[in-house]
Amino acid sequence: MTATSGIPATMRAAVLHGPGKLSLEERPVPDPGPGEVLVRVEAVGTCGSDVHYYRHGRIGDFVVREPLVLGHEAAGTVVACGPGTDTRRIGRRVSIEPGTPCGSCGECRPGRYNLCPDMSFLATPPVDGAFCEYLAVHQDFAHEVPDSLTLEEAALLEPLSVAVWACRKAHVAPGDRVLITGAGPIGLVAAQTARAFGAREVMVTDVLPHRLALARATGATALDVSSTPLSEAGYTPTVLLECSGVPAVSGEAIRTVGRAGRVVLVGMGGDEIPLPLSRVQNYELELTGTFRYAHTWPTATALVASGAVRLDSLVSHGYGLAEAESALTVATHDATAVKAVIYPQR
Amino acid sequence: MTATSGIPATMRAAVLHGPGKLSLEERPVPDPGPGEVLVRVEAVGTCGSDVHYYRHGRIGDFVVREPLVLGHEAAGTVVACGPGTDTRRIGRRVSIEPGTPCGSCGECRPGRYNLCPDMSFLATPPVDGAFCEYLAVHQDFAHEVPDSLTLEEAALLEPLSVAVWACRKAHVAPGDRVLITGAGPIGLVAAQTARAFGAREVMVTDVLPHRLALARATGATALDVSSTPLSEAGYTPTVLLECSGVPAVSGEAIRTVGRAGRVVLVGMGGDEIPLPLSRVQNYELELTGTFRYAHTWPTATALVASGAVRLDSLVSHGYGLAEAESALTVATHDATAVKAVIYPQR
Amino acid sequence: MTATSGIPATMRAAVLHGPGKLSLEERPVPDPGPGEVLVRVEAVGTCGSDVHYYRHGRIGDFVVREPLVLGHEAAGTVVACGPGTDTRRIGRRVSIEPGTPCGSCGECRPGRYNLCPDMSFLATPPVDGAFCEYLAVHQDFAHEVPDSLTLEEAALLEPLSVAVWACRKAHVAPGDRVLITGAGPIGLVAAQTARAFGAREVMVTDVLPHRLALARATGATALDVSSTPLSEAGYTPTVLLECSGVPAVSGEAIRTVGRAGRVVLVGMGGDEIPLPLSRVQNYELELTGTFRYAHTWPTATALVASGAVRLDSLVSHGYGLAEAESALTVATHDATAVKAVIYPQR
Amino acid sequence: MTATSGIPATMRAAVLHGPGKLSLEERPVPDPGPGEVLVRVEAVGTCGSDVHYYRHGRIGDFVVREPLVLGHEAAGTVVACGPGTDTRRIGRRVSIEPGTPCGSCGECRPGRYNLCPDMSFLATPPVDGAFCEYLAVHQDFAHEVPDSLTLEEAALLEPLSVAVWACRKAHVAPGDRVLITGAGPIGLVAAQTARAFGAREVMVTDVLPHRLALARATGATALDVSSTPLSEAGYTPTVLLECSGVPAVSGEAIRTVGRAGRVVLVGMGGDEIPLPLSRVQNYELELTGTFRYAHTWPTATALVASGAVRLDSLVSHGYGLAEAESALTVATHDATAVKAVIYPQR
Repeated sequence: MTATSGIPATMRAAVLHGPGKLSLEERPVPDPGPGEVLVRVEAVGTCGSDVHYYRHGRIGDFVVREPLVLGHEAAGTVVACGPGTDTRRIGRRVSIEPGTPCGSCGECRPGRYNLCPDMSFLATPPVDGAFCEYLAVHQDFAHEVPDSLTLEEAALLEPLSVAVWACRKAHVAPGDRVLITGAGPIGLVAAQTARAFGAREVMVTDVLPHRLALARATGATALDVSSTPLSEAGYTPTVLLECSGVPAVSGEAIRTVGRAGRVVLVGMGGDEIPLPLSRVQNYELELTGTFRYAHTWPTATALVASGAVRLDSLVSHGYGLAEAESALTVATHDATAVKAVIYPQR
Repeated sequence: MTATSGIPATMRAAVLHGPGKLSLEERPVPDPGPGEVLVRVEAVGTCGSDVHYYRHGRIGDFVVREPLVLGHEAAGTVVACGPGTDTRRIGRRVSIEPGTPCGSCGECRPGRYNLCPDMSFLATPPVDGAFCEYLAVHQDFAHEVPDSLTLEEAALLEPLSVAVWACRKAHVAPGDRVLITGAGPIGLVAAQTARAFGAREVMVTDVLPHRLALARATGATALDVSSTPLSEAGYTPTVLLECSGVPAVSGEAIRTVGRAGRVVLVGMGGDEIPLPLSRVQNYELELTGTFRYAHTWPTATALVASGAVRLDSLVSHGYGLAEAESALTVATHDATAVKAVIYPQR
Repeated sequence: MTATSGIPATMRAAVLHGPGKLSLEERPVPDPGPGEVLVRVEAVGTCGSDVHYYRHGRIGDFVVREPLVLGHEAAGTVVACGPGTDTRRIGRRVSIEPGTPCGSCGECRPGRYNLCPDMSFLATPPVDGAFCEYLAVHQDFAHEVPDSLTLEEAALLEPLSVAVWACRKAHVAPGDRVLITGAGPIGLVAAQTARAFGAREVMVTDVLPHRLALARATGATALDVSSTPLSEAGYTPTVLLECSGVPAVSGEAIRTVGRAGRVVLVGMGGDEIPLPLSRVQNYELELTGTFRYAHTWPTATALVASGAVRLDSLVSHGYGLAEAESALTVATHDATAVKAVIYPQR
Repeated sequence: MTATSGIPATMRAAVLHGPGKLSLEERPVPDPGPGEVLVRVEAVGTCGSDVHYYRHGRIGDFVVREPLVLGHEAAGTVVACGPGTDTRRIGRRVSIEPGTPCGSCGECRPGRYNLCPDMSFLATPPVDGAFCEYLAVHQDFAHEVPDSLTLEEAALLEPLSVAVWACRKAHVAPGDRVLITGAGPIGLVAAQTARAFGAREVMVTDVLPHRLALARATGATALDVSSTPLSEAGYTPTVLLECSGVPAVSGEAIRTVGRAGRVVLVGMGGDEIPLPLSRVQNYELELTGTFRYAHTWPTATALVASGAVRLDSLVSHGYGLAEAESALTVATHDATAVKAVIYPQR
């Protein structure tokens, strides 16, 4: 292993022991294995899935049985190189793609590595995440970022990747009218991304005034569906990016999509949604769901570097590692919370 | 108008006046308008939609308010030519594509004419269908068929078109494992069509022994889901062609499709189906529905001409025009009924 | 026919009688036929093909045998409506799509109307063009434009359509690195269009300083290939839009495209180009050519309305109808000429 | 390493030392490394590239500088397993995919592993090939074959993969009219493969009566272009699979393809071909080249197992390893030679 000087033997990590039980612990700094680099973690976004694990100790079939470090939206600096890696990377700033696929299964070989059944994904039991000071990452998934990106932007390339992937699946292109249901972090990033893909018009729905204002700030039309039902808005999108995860919202939104329109189900929530069969058939809608993303980092990086997508404005709160619990709970008492970022080196 | 001699002034037609009320009536033989040819109708298949109109007087929003002639799977011979058509077509055998689109709307111009909101479709209120002796048809939708096709095959190019369209939407290609739910006429034709598109393996499900036997005769594996639930069959298709129209069947079948699989909802029935969201997302399934078909006749004709698809074996019953009611009701008392054909010239 | 008052019986038209022989003549104002509207022509761009017909009396197999009115980049105002059209269109500003396809052939039905063998295209022998005061146009191809577009922009939606079509054929999307060879009007518009489709980087090559400056003004990198050969520029595009029409340039440019890259041959010139077979094979390049465009006007209009593409800056010269010859020859003596526009009502 | 008993320490290999210099030598049997299996080679087809290396000592930039073992169309039986592989594979029959990509570059990750710049490919300098008794192969590229396949068929899945890949690139589907130029082994396999993909009509051109007869035996129309030039054959294909590698043939064949047709350049030969630009543009032809194949073995295996493609009939000559030189030269004196197979265990 080649490394910068000054890497300590141990580090702090915020560890989840069960619903609502988070503690700051001392752990060994990992050794980068073959093909891995060691990253000093400098910014980590908190995601709805982190909050869900913190509150419920599980997401569907994924149950926290052993202590788990949360966090998967991370950026930092390479400080050491494992065997078989390029030592010139030491000192460079990277954004971490949190999933490492097997590379040789029937999904990886054809390029769908996000569907790899043997994916190792940060902060998904039993794999520890990034709410800690150092992380060993496969060199291919520690993506270098240009100097023009802030640390927070580098971290938030992860949610941006979700949006890029959704826009790719929806084949968003110039001329499209896009509807985005749900103005949470993903919806807000998707609104900007759809515009960067050339969409002529973007409408975002929500019921929270603060989120609607943020949607409006992206240049989108914001629709408060608590006062105007979507079905009465007179908008016929060519593309729907469903980001709310609310089954009833999905169903209603699909009924507005125009002929030969495309629907991408991004938001998770509930095992089933009521699919309006006759609309799907009579209009020959094309529908799919997204599972994370693949091959998105270079494009996401370019979108931020060019200014087409602004991520900094999403960051509403910042915390040190010792305050991880505050980061995970801020949304429960502050309605203006969008994205809380943890700075592990603080 | 150029015509063969001997075209009468009036003709017989089987007219639906309300649920269960069918009568044979004398009507004027239509004059072919500009761009139209007059076809002497020689064979017409009965379709589930005909039966549904006969029994209930409506299909969803389509209500039989005026007397209606049913039938939209028709073949015959050109006997007269309207203005602006090629008179050499007189005497040629044709298969009738039953929908005439407007040709210039936002769906027609890009080639999706099946989605034309101004489509005129045989036997769909208020447009009369083919249970009659003569039909005026736009020249572009009276497709010539080679001598090697029988009359019944020429008529059944219509349901074959449904299957061709479904296979195209599903991108069926060599290497695919196809699951077809429902061994009705469409499922049985789809099984052969999927094979003709190169599918390596085709499984068809149903609960009726007679239909399962017909499925088996196409070379497919037939699964009796009354004894073996699909979820226990150990089959992971790459493509699902849902042809049953039963919501619960759709939901269960989608749960068996493999990663990056494709789902085409062909069968109609019910306004909503319970879509397994997590399967669609975690496996990134691509799902669509079909509405009739577009650009399928030449390919369907070639598939029958080459022997890749056999349609004659679907014909289980034949009737004269005066027996149209029998054709529409045979399935209620004869479990072996698959496709009843009406011969209007008898 | 419904019309505004004040339409004269005759109009002026600039008529080509042979190479270099243009005369201003009085002609009857056309009557709009069924499905047609009459447009008062207010701005017409001159295109390289107009110049070529003017100089040589032919383009390849298209020979000017009868007197011909040139011009196919036109905009104006609807002043009369033929049978079967919506009279509310009178008074509205339109951009004219210059080709009217048959609507029912084997190319039109599947949506590829630009490939219609019976296309009637303005200023292509024997069809007269738009260097005149009034034009009868099929209602579907007189596209309304928002008030925010200038007359010149409305006229130049035609060359923008060429660029939109090229970008669609190339599947330009966020993340792409685009190379455009040739900074003529099409290349300059394509540079902006590629950016609007999300391209992360656009390089434009030429040898004329004035055109390189215009390319740079679009935000692209401009490469003067008279000083730096493309092969030494160190640029590996994912997409090549060949807009020069120079065979040797095409060949050299294709050799720079990266693996799985896409090549669209837009520029016309010469019957053959030397295709680097081993590059195409070893890199599995996907190559196609464009012939005009299809379904582009709404998207082109939206791109200009949103400000994503600027067309006004292309207009370098303006003339009245009586000065059509000057418009067609300005490029021969003024190296800064990009796009000359004729205003027929002057 | 787990192995069957009886694996010798050394083996025979046919080694090329320069143009026309082939010698049988004793070499160590390789040890399977991590992730590799050891295959006893039982059948190897000879390919045009083997013949070319034998005659000229090079193919383009690939020069035989060190002694080289030829052969890359191989099948055999797994006899030993390296670390990290499944020992149950011992005793199973496999077809060898001859290229092993790096698995993590910018081509491999998106699934285009055939374009991997670090590909290690059998019988391509400096990588030794399969004209020997034992070969160590990455487990993912030793594809198991069903018992129904003969040894020869298992070996010839390699050229079949070339054809499958070409048909995929051309999107061959039911309804297509396919033209195949060149009735060599690849053309003959492509004819069958195109049919298996659903092509309604396949025409194969050549000038050698023996090859034309073989083409006819696949069910294709065979055109002797020495008597009827292709341009006079009255055939307008939707798809061209160019398998001759003769530049003039490519150019002429492209000129026959119909509007929106697809062209795949499979045959190698010459660095440039004269591309008919106006045809490519006016007809918007889509053209690409193939470089080997990716993800084809399961489909190729299924096509042979189902009987859709017959490979045995291609085998015209068989030799022991000591006769490798005869296998490489038979085509020079026997016009009926199609595919010579070497049996290394003889």
